Amino acid sequence: MEVHMSQPLADDLGFLLSRASGQVVRATNSALAGHGLRVRQYSVLTLACQAAEGISQRELASVLGLDPSQVVLLVDELTAAGLVERQAQEADRRTRLVVATPEGHRVRETAREDADAAMETPLSLLGEAERERLRDMLTRIWTATG
Amino acid sequence: MEVHMSQPLADDLGFLLSRASGQVVRATNSALAGHGLRVRQYSVLTLACQAAEGISQRELASVLGLDPSQVVLLVDELTAAGLVERQAQEADRRTRLVVATPEGHRVRETAREDADAAMETPLSLLGEAERERLRDMLTRIWTATG
Repeated sequence: MEVHMSQPLADDLGFLLSRASGQVVRATNSALAGHGLRVRQYSVLTLACQAAEGISQRELASVLGLDPSQVVLLVDELTAAGLVERQAQEADRRTRLVVATPEGHRVRETAREDADAAMETPLSLLGEAERERLRDMLTRIWTATG
Repeated sequence: MEVHMSQPLADDLGFLLSRASGQVVRATNSALAGHGLRVRQYSVLTLACQAAEGISQRELASVLGLDPSQVVLLVDELTAAGLVERQAQEADRRTRLVVATPEGHRVRETAREDADAAMETPLSLLGEAERERLRDMLTRIWTATG
């Protein structure tokens, strides 16, 4: 009754991808819990911190591969926590950009070390060259369907 | 304001893993919608179909990397749809096993081709040797944290 790796589902790349990703997300969520963040919030916060002038919700949805409605919810949550703000864009007042607050930058810096460490555990069995190959393949999977 | 791949988050293997996995899950969910299934339900159904004598909810949680409470919900949904049943195990009447019904086997066979095709799209840029390497690395990530 044991489920062996040789069975179809376990050979299935889509399943393996989802399973490995789930492991990393769970480990990272645990590490981020102490900072009051979940992985998706942390990703939105990180992108907002990286974009000097802010980033639109449409771009966030595209980069993160999420529905616009999911992004709105995440930005609402981060706004309520005081970590980001929606600001009108200089060039086009109709477009509002998500900008990290000083508190958002601080929380992200603090959370970053724990998030990186958590992510490191499941990836620790891979050598540097393998990581490069994995990064390359995952980027191509992303690009194929983006 | 464009987010370039050279930025930290996009270099991050955990992020790439989650993004690539999300692409595959979304493509597969779309393909499965016509069969009234989502990816996780399909995974539970597949494992139930593969286990001749059925599979326990504890095993399902372990193989799928889900919380037991999530598995109970998925099995409830599949039971309500008439695709699986909970049956008492022969050897130990206290352990109940999830067993696919004849209708469950039929639906899974019908859904399988569409699910496989959907999964194929994002993976189509990888050659056979690369798939093998990816499969190997993902299995090791899984094993490292299982």
